[in-house]
Amino acid sequence: MAAGRSTKPVTGNWHKVATGEFNWPAMARISGLRFGTGNARIKDTDENDVLIVEINAGATVAGVFTQNVFCAAPVSLSKKHLALNAPRYLVVNSGNANACTGARGHEDALHCCHTLASLAGVQSEEILPFSTGVIGEPLPADKIARVLPQAFAGLSADNWLPAAKAIMTTDTRPKGASETLDIDGVKVSVTGIAKGSGMIKPNMATMLAYVATDAAIEKNLLETLCQQAVSASFNRITIDGDTSTNDACILIASGKETAVQVTDAESPAYQKIAAAVSTVFLSLARQIVMDGEGATKFIEIQVKNGNTPEECLIVAYEIAHSPLVKTAFFASDPNWGRIVAAIGKAPIKNVNAEKIRVWLNDLLVVENATHAAAYTEKAGQAEMNKPAITVIVDLAQGDAQERIWTSDLSHGYVTINADYRS
Amino acid sequence: MAAGRSTKPVTGNWHKVATGEFNWPAMARISGLRFGTGNARIKDTDENDVLIVEINAGATVAGVFTQNVFCAAPVSLSKKHLALNAPRYLVVNSGNANACTGARGHEDALHCCHTLASLAGVQSEEILPFSTGVIGEPLPADKIARVLPQAFAGLSADNWLPAAKAIMTTDTRPKGASETLDIDGVKVSVTGIAKGSGMIKPNMATMLAYVATDAAIEKNLLETLCQQAVSASFNRITIDGDTSTNDACILIASGKETAVQVTDAESPAYQKIAAAVSTVFLSLARQIVMDGEGATKFIEIQVKNGNTPEECLIVAYEIAHSPLVKTAFFASDPNWGRIVAAIGKAPIKNVNAEKIRVWLNDLLVVENATHAAAYTEKAGQAEMNKPAITVIVDLAQGDAQERIWTSDLSHGYVTINADYRS
Repeated sequence: MAAGRSTKPVTGNWHKVATGEFNWPAMARISGLRFGTGNARIKDTDENDVLIVEINAGATVAGVFTQNVFCAAPVSLSKKHLALNAPRYLVVNSGNANACTGARGHEDALHCCHTLASLAGVQSEEILPFSTGVIGEPLPADKIARVLPQAFAGLSADNWLPAAKAIMTTDTRPKGASETLDIDGVKVSVTGIAKGSGMIKPNMATMLAYVATDAAIEKNLLETLCQQAVSASFNRITIDGDTSTNDACILIASGKETAVQVTDAESPAYQKIAAAVSTVFLSLARQIVMDGEGATKFIEIQVKNGNTPEECLIVAYEIAHSPLVKTAFFASDPNWGRIVAAIGKAPIKNVNAEKIRVWLNDLLVVENATHAAAYTEKAGQAEMNKPAITVIVDLAQGDAQERIWTSDLSHGYVTINADYRS
Repeated sequence: MAAGRSTKPVTGNWHKVATGEFNWPAMARISGLRFGTGNARIKDTDENDVLIVEINAGATVAGVFTQNVFCAAPVSLSKKHLALNAPRYLVVNSGNANACTGARGHEDALHCCHTLASLAGVQSEEILPFSTGVIGEPLPADKIARVLPQAFAGLSADNWLPAAKAIMTTDTRPKGASETLDIDGVKVSVTGIAKGSGMIKPNMATMLAYVATDAAIEKNLLETLCQQAVSASFNRITIDGDTSTNDACILIASGKETAVQVTDAESPAYQKIAAAVSTVFLSLARQIVMDGEGATKFIEIQVKNGNTPEECLIVAYEIAHSPLVKTAFFASDPNWGRIVAAIGKAPIKNVNAEKIRVWLNDLLVVENATHAAAYTEKAGQAEMNKPAITVIVDLAQGDAQERIWTSDLSHGYVTINADYRS
């Protein structure tokens, strides 16, 4: 993915997010899609917790789902339904993940599908269910069913913001991104929302993203695009591992902009749309990191000149997963020894420690297996004090590169995760 | 290793440690070994920070060293010297790791060896140097050299406790273990010390262990024994990864008990000694976990009925490394969904989620992909309130099993690691 390899620095909304100035972006309508929300009081608050997404007939839909072997009942059902039909509706609830709920979980998810199917006059198999929230508690499907008529009655193409809010769990802000592009004089848009709060949180189960374009894209191509964009975005921010029990990302091509029909991955139109989809995915993924539990820093880790992209990722994750590195970022401590030790324990072959170099932003910190000759603690401190920090590692082996995003490990993280449910 | 497969529960000193009642154990002398300590004021405190270990001529010595590619200068030198000669001395300092110190680090480590060699009348190549402490700062080798005569003059076979104290860094207590056994009417002992504070701490670089027996053990056999015992003990507690820049474990067979000569791995004498060595290693490893940074809980994770030991370990580490699981232990929260999600994301094949079972101590918590029928939150809470908790996972695949040890993730951990160096 071009987007995954770019070395473009963190810009745009991200510094705004870091400084609390984030505004909900302009979200282009996607003709063919409508959104309705309601409050089933699953969470017992005044916030909506149910979302219906209506998809026009003729749209193509692709999905990427969790690999967790304990995948939740709605995930199993969505995968099954997506394989059978072009979906006409998504039904999403927050507050309860319907995960680890056994046979009853499957029935509850089906119940939601049946109810919406009756309302909308479609088959249950044309509906994809999604749940996010606490694991192991029965889904209050009756409550959801009771609010679906109201949500259905309120369907509107302009409801991106209410939709983004309805799927939030511990998120502190709704997440949306939108790109509009010109393809041979025709305006095409890519717009999407997501939920998720930085760290993978299996109990909050976890990350959901819904992105749509009004271009027409052939289904196999759309599936490839969805997988590639997920790989370069959401799969680059999973701090605790790969996937939770409920993770899902859905990409929809409504095809309502009939002047843009994409069937060829080599076409300029596809390249443009793929870049916009990647930008939207990446923006949503970064918003999730910035909204990380207890996050005080936004960290990008670039590993370059590795033998393979896989080895670059291994090194990047060793750094991103190290509690010692993460607490050093929290403390704004230029403790480069922790970064070096994390790199050094990565299980990759033929590394020459003498040749590895490490930067904090533009500051060369490590070379020749010790601190750089010109490095000073004061200069390191200045970089670590910044709210957004890029760690760059040059492995001096080959020409592969990768980048991932993470946040720091703070008292806030421990508090949120130790106190939740209490 | 028998010790690695035993399902013997956590007993003995461990509950005493958990409740703060730990007493320094009776440490059997190992004829042939003497210990001398001194204060080079590397840490600028009144605690000793230099240790000399004298080893009799004729002893066999085995070592296991860090795999970190940024291994410290003393590690490189010790490996080289150990390959050349049977060592006659170890020289250890705490407070500075002499890691990531470039060419100067090598010279500084050699300087320590030269000084001790002159004092003791041996070759520098008969000395193994070790350092533990902060990474990236030059070793004050002159300070160490100045205190070596005093440490050398104080060599005594009874100095196990001062030795254990001299190698401490952020450890809150010295770590020692000793076993005495009878082999055909001859008394043989295995005694050892270690330092390390729970979490792998690359900047504190990190875990050192010195264990000795007075039996005579053939060198190849001793090397195998050392590797196997490390694998089942210290390599089962590395929370953040595998090894730091300075980790080392040395096993010495003085052979002063000439009535016990071990040259055959199948002999009853070897089996008995191997079991005692494993017990000592395991005790030291558990003491490191119990002294973990900010640790409030001692967690054993057993994974059984897996396809292979490797897959059992993968699952065990997914649980042990999950910040969500670790914060749940800190909060005494019976949040079994987090454990299930950690198991579910382990990259092992052909898992049937429906068949996996999970216990907290003796309480069955998960079966049939949901909570056990008889499970109650109250019962789960009672187990989580305990200071030592065993998580048992039955993968229902094969007959392999493994177990590892870890601690929880507390505010104390964040405080220690965010504030260190400040």
